[in-house]
Amino acid sequence: MSAKNAFYAQSGGVTAVINASACGVIETARRHTDKIANVYAGRNGIIGALTEDLIDTSQESDEAIAALRYTPSGAFGSCRYKLKSLEANRREYERLIEVFKAHDIGYFFYNGGGDSADTCYKVSQLSEALGYPVQAIHVPKTVDNDLPITDNCPGFGSVAKYIATSALEASFDVRSMAKTSTKVFVLEVMGRHAGWIAAAGGLIEDHDIPVMILFPEIEFDQERFLASVKDKVERSGFCTILVSEGAKYPDGRFLAEQGTRDAFGHAQLGGAAPVVANMIKDATGYKFHWAVADYLQRAARHLASKTDVEQAYAMGRAGVEFALAGHNAVMPTVKRLSSDPYAWEVGEAPLSEVANVEKFMPRDFISEDGFGITPICKEYLIPLIQGEDYPPFEQGLPKYVTLKNASVERRLPSFEL
Amino acid sequence: MSAKNAFYAQSGGVTAVINASACGVIETARRHTDKIANVYAGRNGIIGALTEDLIDTSQESDEAIAALRYTPSGAFGSCRYKLKSLEANRREYERLIEVFKAHDIGYFFYNGGGDSADTCYKVSQLSEALGYPVQAIHVPKTVDNDLPITDNCPGFGSVAKYIATSALEASFDVRSMAKTSTKVFVLEVMGRHAGWIAAAGGLIEDHDIPVMILFPEIEFDQERFLASVKDKVERSGFCTILVSEGAKYPDGRFLAEQGTRDAFGHAQLGGAAPVVANMIKDATGYKFHWAVADYLQRAARHLASKTDVEQAYAMGRAGVEFALAGHNAVMPTVKRLSSDPYAWEVGEAPLSEVANVEKFMPRDFISEDGFGITPICKEYLIPLIQGEDYPPFEQGLPKYVTLKNASVERRLPSFEL
Repeated sequence: MSAKNAFYAQSGGVTAVINASACGVIETARRHTDKIANVYAGRNGIIGALTEDLIDTSQESDEAIAALRYTPSGAFGSCRYKLKSLEANRREYERLIEVFKAHDIGYFFYNGGGDSADTCYKVSQLSEALGYPVQAIHVPKTVDNDLPITDNCPGFGSVAKYIATSALEASFDVRSMAKTSTKVFVLEVMGRHAGWIAAAGGLIEDHDIPVMILFPEIEFDQERFLASVKDKVERSGFCTILVSEGAKYPDGRFLAEQGTRDAFGHAQLGGAAPVVANMIKDATGYKFHWAVADYLQRAARHLASKTDVEQAYAMGRAGVEFALAGHNAVMPTVKRLSSDPYAWEVGEAPLSEVANVEKFMPRDFISEDGFGITPICKEYLIPLIQGEDYPPFEQGLPKYVTLKNASVERRLPSFEL
Repeated sequence: MSAKNAFYAQSGGVTAVINASACGVIETARRHTDKIANVYAGRNGIIGALTEDLIDTSQESDEAIAALRYTPSGAFGSCRYKLKSLEANRREYERLIEVFKAHDIGYFFYNGGGDSADTCYKVSQLSEALGYPVQAIHVPKTVDNDLPITDNCPGFGSVAKYIATSALEASFDVRSMAKTSTKVFVLEVMGRHAGWIAAAGGLIEDHDIPVMILFPEIEFDQERFLASVKDKVERSGFCTILVSEGAKYPDGRFLAEQGTRDAFGHAQLGGAAPVVANMIKDATGYKFHWAVADYLQRAARHLASKTDVEQAYAMGRAGVEFALAGHNAVMPTVKRLSSDPYAWEVGEAPLSEVANVEKFMPRDFISEDGFGITPICKEYLIPLIQGEDYPPFEQGLPKYVTLKNASVERRLPSFEL
């Protein structure tokens, strides 16, 4: 069998370590040029494949590819573009196969979350049906940590480390100021559906910080929440609160959407953090500060978890190895062997079982009162934030790489998205 | 002369490196027990002196004091409590001297910004007048970088490094997503009066990031701003914006205060970032993300500037050395000798020239259009963010110290604040 090309694309929200997976894919492919001639990357994710806008990664030096390991964000561009069912999007799926055929692509590595696992699965099925079989491998990535089967998702450990560290540092700050000034600090974190990131903030409880968490999985009980904040401030002098962007009232409204309007009547300027902070102020009079971490949290490669970086790289490498071993429609996973000492190995999951399944915080990871995490949750989280893996710095700032991203010549007529 | 005790207090908003100054004060004092018997710290800043709530630092081990060098926040507590004029607050100034006398305190080290320099100056004057002369030394600290005479203020370099790094990382993220999603990222930073922190974000321009800055020093020109954002997005595909919390309209209103109301009519939930982000959305339709760094920026010891840590320590040490040499009513300063290569030495400023003077961004540090920084501003900033000085980590989180903070026995009747 002569060597085929591979196609790699990044999907959805990027992370501090998705490029480490790209690095794992490309470096591993470069060691198997007998089977993988070249890796083409999609410019801006799957849109690059649909529009035949491919990047020739062979034009990047080994050094540039190695630097992906410590460069956050998506080096080839990503996109939010969901291919729906084969029925609804058949034209697009067929176009993908056409582009793969035109560029002699036999391997499809799709680096993303739940939606991209689904797309990846469908590509594998359709390519078979259309007589141009492509080995489709999904490389897991999501800060939301909501993919099934895998013990955790690359991208999550680094956000968890960043949020727990930031919450710890800010809590020390508040503790210093609480006597005459700020008594409550509210930090809003990502997590529209699952509270994994907010949960990481709970780790600072073991550093003597009074902390409360508002999970998307737990209906917000305003009265109990305010009583508990008051109790914590009275006992410790201060309190730190982590709120998921997806925290909701019992009627399903997001806390962030509680009717905030600007002077012109435009809806919803703010996030959940100012809403929670002001609610506390109104009920207790406590002076507050709030922060919204937003992109800072998922881009913070300067404080990545070493475990996370290693796993992200390993998922990319394993994806290529699975493909070389003839596997199809699978996703490498992280399989935990032991928590203390932490040990893990690469596992494998069929995409049919990954696609369209979301993993929420188990109820027994959340404390009975709904505002904290349990010891088994801590046991789960702690290994994922282990180790530091600092990027190189130059002139005081991280020295991240920007690739050349040279285009592959087009061979097909253009295609309207 | 027999050894006297020293009093040390932290004032105002804390920083990532104010404890490094405390470390410099205490370690240096411990090397001169012939002259400084013990260092008492004020619990919660100057309030601790007024209420005779003193902390006995001799009960802390050398290891614990050494750990202050890498622990953010104020280890003894700080406060926002301004002593005004001698006329208005004479009773409190006299109480300070009384407490100093009762505990045989001959040295007063006050670690803070402009207000505390003023207090420190008055204590020195009054103690003389009252016949119990105390050597009062101000140790500079402020993330706002607005003290005069000193080239820069300990605390600022670390915030600058954190903000520039975070803005760079988030910009890489936005660049990845801009094709189909977020095109504008807005990061709100501290700086009520002076734009030094926002200016640090301008350093990412040299990493090919289209960036705009809204300074408190420059009246906000909405029309020109929006036109420039649009131009940048059209040319580069995305744009990053740093907004100072103190950015203002020509009529003096803060951007953050533009009449935001929640469902109950309560004023001002949000900060400047969501206001700017929504303004751009309304004018251009661009999808945006915004973050408010708040305490995260000034507490982020995990990404401190090595230069800043060294200078913070050196200011504490120099403060003690000045006192031992008999100086009074002075502040150690950072004196820049050269920018490239960076060289500095400790200088000395009389408090009479420091008190009540605020240093703003010079106009020639701000680009002509008012939205960026100039080469001489970069030359000023770059040395201040040089070097990394990571704290130790344990179980994935920084291992910061919490002191015992044992109380000194009271000798005086209580005092009502």
